[in-house]
Amino acid sequence: MKLHWSPRSPFVRKVMVAAHELGLAERIATVRTVVAMQKPARELLPENALGKIPTLVLDDGTILYDSLVIIEYLDSLAGGGRLIPAAGLARIAELRRHALADGFLDLLILWRNERDRAHPLPALLDAFALKTDAVLPALEAEIGAIAEAPAGLAQITTAIAGAYMDFRFPDLGWRARCPRLSAWQQAFAERPSMRATAIVDA
Amino acid sequence: MKLHWSPRSPFVRKVMVAAHELGLAERIATVRTVVAMQKPARELLPENALGKIPTLVLDDGTILYDSLVIIEYLDSLAGGGRLIPAAGLARIAELRRHALADGFLDLLILWRNERDRAHPLPALLDAFALKTDAVLPALEAEIGAIAEAPAGLAQITTAIAGAYMDFRFPDLGWRARCPRLSAWQQAFAERPSMRATAIVDA
Repeated sequence: MKLHWSPRSPFVRKVMVAAHELGLAERIATVRTVVAMQKPARELLPENALGKIPTLVLDDGTILYDSLVIIEYLDSLAGGGRLIPAAGLARIAELRRHALADGFLDLLILWRNERDRAHPLPALLDAFALKTDAVLPALEAEIGAIAEAPAGLAQITTAIAGAYMDFRFPDLGWRARCPRLSAWQQAFAERPSMRATAIVDA
Repeated sequence: MKLHWSPRSPFVRKVMVAAHELGLAERIATVRTVVAMQKPARELLPENALGKIPTLVLDDGTILYDSLVIIEYLDSLAGGGRLIPAAGLARIAELRRHALADGFLDLLILWRNERDRAHPLPALLDAFALKTDAVLPALEAEIGAIAEAPAGLAQITTAIAGAYMDFRFPDLGWRARCPRLSAWQQAFAERPSMRATAIVDA
């Protein structure tokens, strides 16, 4: 399998952490593909017209995206139900918790693009801040339930969101604002899957 | 069930079309909740910190988002495997096709926000156009396979993306550029689920 990859994309990192957790990382050959909102990777468009990473190309040519679809595929390769419960309300709960952490990553990436502009829109910056002020307490309130579930998609994505805030939004002070989330994230970040995929500021 | 709803959100429409297809529409009470990137709905944040619609509140207080999670939940209520194949490669293929149409909707919404700004970034407008020039032929090439599968998540999302282009991006001329997609979409749009949820320009 070939994965369009970049060392700093949190969505790519989700896939790589999942692959490590499932024992599949060695079957994935990574290809460095740099994408930015203002700089699409033209060479990627024939494989993923949305120009997004991660994009996984299977040996038979089948192409998979986005990160959730790829992780569900890898999970099925590893027998199924390991990172995402196979059925029932446990599955829906895991996917909903994933949606919070994953949607937060989307928000942070848009926020970062906005604040770097010459003419950022104050109303938009305020909206990102307002939502973040809602997301952080929501994650802090929920981390007990997230941590109780088996290590899976929601935990991986939540831990990566924490690492992404450390990397791109140190000013948020999220660790002081979310002490339980912070302690849990710090412990999760010691897993081999997280250490193997840590963001390197190169 | 209570659904935070708006008549023009294509993501809300996905949920409502799915509910109609599954015979569950009458169990959903819609609440009009207006959100825009620059105008978050403050009253929504306690239920969905990301401030996004659709957000579904179950009778026991459980809150579900995003549209994919809600549709998977509704599908399971209706017995499972009706709009998304329950397992196997058919499931992965359906989710990947959904990811293309759904990611395209994300792109179009960001594009619309960008072009309405006082200082849009030319590089960003170019990037949206370049990706759209890749997405349209990808959908046109794939509509045969999408149409062959049972009416489900990928068909619903693809048809809604077509309607959204008619509504917000008439200048794209997508129907002339994608004649097979256009013909298929026009037929799909006649389904009662689509007619019951058609965008009204009020």
